[in-house]
Amino acid sequence: MTNRREFLKGASASAAALGAGLVSKAALAALPESPVMESAAMQVPLEPSSGRHYNPVVTLNGWSLPWRMKDGWKEFHLTAEAVERELAPGMTARLWGYNGQSPGPTIECVEGDKVRIYVTNRLPEHTTIHWHGIFLPAGMDGVGGLNQPQIPPGKTFAYEFELKQSGTFMYHPHADEMVQMAMGMMGSLVVHPKNSEQYKVDRDFCFLMSSYDIEPGTMTARINTMLDFNIWTWNSRVFPGIDHLVAGLNEKVRVRMGNLTMTNHPIHVHGLKFEVACTDGGWVPKEARWPEVTSDIAIGQMRAIEFIADAPGDWAMHCHKSHHTMNPMGHNVPNMIGVDQRRVQDRLGKLLPGYMIMGERGMADMGEMVMQLPDNTLPMMTGEGPFGPIEMGGMFTVLKVRKGQKPGDYADPGWYQYPKGTVAYEV
Amino acid sequence: MTNRREFLKGASASAAALGAGLVSKAALAALPESPVMESAAMQVPLEPSSGRHYNPVVTLNGWSLPWRMKDGWKEFHLTAEAVERELAPGMTARLWGYNGQSPGPTIECVEGDKVRIYVTNRLPEHTTIHWHGIFLPAGMDGVGGLNQPQIPPGKTFAYEFELKQSGTFMYHPHADEMVQMAMGMMGSLVVHPKNSEQYKVDRDFCFLMSSYDIEPGTMTARINTMLDFNIWTWNSRVFPGIDHLVAGLNEKVRVRMGNLTMTNHPIHVHGLKFEVACTDGGWVPKEARWPEVTSDIAIGQMRAIEFIADAPGDWAMHCHKSHHTMNPMGHNVPNMIGVDQRRVQDRLGKLLPGYMIMGERGMADMGEMVMQLPDNTLPMMTGEGPFGPIEMGGMFTVLKVRKGQKPGDYADPGWYQYPKGTVAYEV
Amino acid sequence: MTNRREFLKGASASAAALGAGLVSKAALAALPESPVMESAAMQVPLEPSSGRHYNPVVTLNGWSLPWRMKDGWKEFHLTAEAVERELAPGMTARLWGYNGQSPGPTIECVEGDKVRIYVTNRLPEHTTIHWHGIFLPAGMDGVGGLNQPQIPPGKTFAYEFELKQSGTFMYHPHADEMVQMAMGMMGSLVVHPKNSEQYKVDRDFCFLMSSYDIEPGTMTARINTMLDFNIWTWNSRVFPGIDHLVAGLNEKVRVRMGNLTMTNHPIHVHGLKFEVACTDGGWVPKEARWPEVTSDIAIGQMRAIEFIADAPGDWAMHCHKSHHTMNPMGHNVPNMIGVDQRRVQDRLGKLLPGYMIMGERGMADMGEMVMQLPDNTLPMMTGEGPFGPIEMGGMFTVLKVRKGQKPGDYADPGWYQYPKGTVAYEV
Repeated sequence: MTNRREFLKGASASAAALGAGLVSKAALAALPESPVMESAAMQVPLEPSSGRHYNPVVTLNGWSLPWRMKDGWKEFHLTAEAVERELAPGMTARLWGYNGQSPGPTIECVEGDKVRIYVTNRLPEHTTIHWHGIFLPAGMDGVGGLNQPQIPPGKTFAYEFELKQSGTFMYHPHADEMVQMAMGMMGSLVVHPKNSEQYKVDRDFCFLMSSYDIEPGTMTARINTMLDFNIWTWNSRVFPGIDHLVAGLNEKVRVRMGNLTMTNHPIHVHGLKFEVACTDGGWVPKEARWPEVTSDIAIGQMRAIEFIADAPGDWAMHCHKSHHTMNPMGHNVPNMIGVDQRRVQDRLGKLLPGYMIMGERGMADMGEMVMQLPDNTLPMMTGEGPFGPIEMGGMFTVLKVRKGQKPGDYADPGWYQYPKGTVAYEV
Repeated sequence: MTNRREFLKGASASAAALGAGLVSKAALAALPESPVMESAAMQVPLEPSSGRHYNPVVTLNGWSLPWRMKDGWKEFHLTAEAVERELAPGMTARLWGYNGQSPGPTIECVEGDKVRIYVTNRLPEHTTIHWHGIFLPAGMDGVGGLNQPQIPPGKTFAYEFELKQSGTFMYHPHADEMVQMAMGMMGSLVVHPKNSEQYKVDRDFCFLMSSYDIEPGTMTARINTMLDFNIWTWNSRVFPGIDHLVAGLNEKVRVRMGNLTMTNHPIHVHGLKFEVACTDGGWVPKEARWPEVTSDIAIGQMRAIEFIADAPGDWAMHCHKSHHTMNPMGHNVPNMIGVDQRRVQDRLGKLLPGYMIMGERGMADMGEMVMQLPDNTLPMMTGEGPFGPIEMGGMFTVLKVRKGQKPGDYADPGWYQYPKGTVAYEV
Repeated sequence: MTNRREFLKGASASAAALGAGLVSKAALAALPESPVMESAAMQVPLEPSSGRHYNPVVTLNGWSLPWRMKDGWKEFHLTAEAVERELAPGMTARLWGYNGQSPGPTIECVEGDKVRIYVTNRLPEHTTIHWHGIFLPAGMDGVGGLNQPQIPPGKTFAYEFELKQSGTFMYHPHADEMVQMAMGMMGSLVVHPKNSEQYKVDRDFCFLMSSYDIEPGTMTARINTMLDFNIWTWNSRVFPGIDHLVAGLNEKVRVRMGNLTMTNHPIHVHGLKFEVACTDGGWVPKEARWPEVTSDIAIGQMRAIEFIADAPGDWAMHCHKSHHTMNPMGHNVPNMIGVDQRRVQDRLGKLLPGYMIMGERGMADMGEMVMQLPDNTLPMMTGEGPFGPIEMGGMFTVLKVRKGQKPGDYADPGWYQYPKGTVAYEV
């Protein structure tokens, strides 16, 4: 395995080896800053400091990219590069991303904006960016070879377009696409409506879904895996590392989600009814919407769901594929349920002191036990709630609806305090 | 392999071993009965004997749970336990379920009902029940560790809530969830509208979809399988063991379906047009509905489709993934089509009398041939229709639409009698 | 491996061996012609020469089946048989299909038409045809064993029905279904509205999706594969072998797609917004439609999307599962990104001159390099665009929208000529 420095510096080294060089200092001086995020924690919403007013989104375990105004253009600067991303405390993965993290920062702009997005390539191979769902001139669509030359390592390209729509979109490479998306290259792209009162909600969250196949104890994903992934993430984070969603009682909440894995994810919200208000194709007319508690999000789709947070409590929100709310595990283990393993344990115990027989009575014990894990992996089922082990992983988090929660306060309010006699009880 | 008695008694034995004990006899005396179903056959609809009137559903290969009224509450009693379920004549699986079968009994209640559901755990590990889609107090939502303490083996918990909605829901554990659902723990939950004329249909069917990975010749599922399942069921039954759906000509029919497997199931109905009338989020407004003949049902989704049975005949109804209408098979067999195997057969036949070469001309022969199968498995393609082998398995059944079928008569009317000259003919 | 002649002649040989014989010459004489297509190229739309007027569709890499009128009936003649299909230049597969190709010819007819479709079986095993989505008498529904006797090798059956609906449908066997669809047996079936002005568009394309598991260097698919396919096709073609879709600026375009693989395909169109106008269940009411750029098409579903081609350029159109825009590859290769392989290359280079280390910097090099491939396979990532390698495969093609494109002209107009300064640029 390569060490951290080699992995992160691989790009420039390779770029040099390729003779590609970097953009000149003079050119760099003219470019807007390309800020780097060091943390996987949710950052405070980025209130617009210039340009049209909008109501900013909150990115789960993420941040929004600052811009500068120049001659009427909003200028952003993305840098594609190798990153180390903490998936959850205890496990870090070596991915590719933008500006220090995977996924990259959320880009927020407003219908009618003219945007110029600089993309600097610090990867060891060429890349491009496709602005998924955006109606723009064909030459800015970012399909390498088809709409533009590839961006070689060390080079910077500029994309320019005027936003003729509002909605929920994403960006990702359209170059060596399977590999680059399997390595975590993607980001949310939100275009706010020109009139900031239109489609207004009290809380506006967003995240993208990605999956990885990382052998427990290693840090790098197998990039050719088509089906048998073992890490299912929201914004390259897994439970219990995914931010909670916090809302005040009776607030209107939007959650914008996109899928860049290799399978559908049916996202289920407990205790509340929602409807899909927006796709990557635009806003869904009111009369065409369906009442749902589980929305199946296909690959290459964005879904913005909206609901009224009309019931207080800690509500689970997760992908409903039970393997996607698990952390790394093998998928070929025999079922030991009902098999009396005591004799096996006796015998093996003599040879392997501390050997632990598993699964004779199901796997719930795994939520509680402390197994000897390899370095840099996570327990299959984990998380500690107010009533004990939650036994989850992967694409799972909690929506915390609280009376008296202040608008704009996203800090974790702790567990819900149940009024007496409102919890299922033993008889 | 453990024997039947060990498997079924595993729970109490383990419970004892764990020192968990059972609820006291006094407490048990106060609880409503927890009836046990011995048969996998469709039971007659349960007409309400107390409480609000409703039009009961019919559960494919299943039954509805009786209740008692107590001080204005409807009291049900589920018992989570190891069961043996006949998947189809010739194959029985050792699953976990409720009240003697997997899936558990359908729970039917009415909008406005106050329900108390006792859940007794006779499994060897802890469990909970989540009431999928129901809007209820957070403490009754059933996510172990998050909303309530786990229900230990031997203990009984009570869930209480008032139904503020009507529709199509399900129940399943939210504790060691992957394992417990992979073992078959689930049931349908139907909330009828307060006004029994609203949303009224002539026939109202329901079932859940589950999948298992059971090595031919064994009885217990591999619980860690994520993708490569070999048994695809409706209510833990496979063709030809799945009940037919019977309807009178021009009757209005509803079929409520839910998916707790690990992949989407596109359910296709031949000869009739339907629309999705209800999801687990509620009733779909008329103007938002789509005309369909194939509805893709994601995991953790319920879909109630409705149609007018306006064409007489025997109409196939099945999942459109062709592997899901097959019974157990290997998925890595080479294709022998076009390979002349006669010489191989000659040679092998001398060494292995009776050796049978397969697949040289396709696999249709398998629908007819009697292969030597291991005990307790099913032919890959099977079923006998009025015109010969149907060559199906898994998620396949027949919708029988008949003129003159009496309302409420669900008995198999036999095969459709085609008027002369109405069948595709040889020239 | 069998040779070409043996494969293609397998059917009649086997038929003879089975003693099934062919239909008599006299009978054959009375049947309409069953024309054979030699080419995988898109054929010019088939303007109706008799019967009601309609606006014909264009089948990607396909053709429509001519018919004859006889006593008020439209008579078609399909022949099920072994075929060789070029998937793209450089790779040919041995499939089963109809009338010389897989998929079979598109069948076009008109609401109100009385159709008689003769089906001759030249396969080595029995077959039937199911007319997916069509409302017809049960005896014409084509489920072998259930609705009709199987059509034995060498025999011809006739299906007769009157079309009571218009829309987008398909045909495929319902006999040894898993095998026969895995071998490529399917075709599009379009029923035009009685009033040819209704639902009228300027361009009307159609295709079906199928997948195969073909070991590189071989020609025959593994028919038992359930998940791990390596060839993802539109009309049994892969990029760069799939026809481009050509449209004039601001024309109204419809694309009718159906899925007969074993997984969902989220079809993404760049640069344009569409809506699903028709399913296999009928036309979707205007007010129920959603704006989309990615439509998830489940197995056994048809989706007709419609859009205004209001932006000139070369727009990518593809399945958004990144592995489905790849040609054959292994899915278990370790990730070499960041691993310095120079020493490995040095050592191996001495033993294996020409040995090439791959993947150290990603896989984009594969879009450019000429690898030594086995005979009869395709590069994993391929295609050459105006700006270099496109690095795609599988389910990918280009929608070419051009100002001044003449109605009805489907010829490839070459690459889009970008006005100066309209392509993402290097800074």
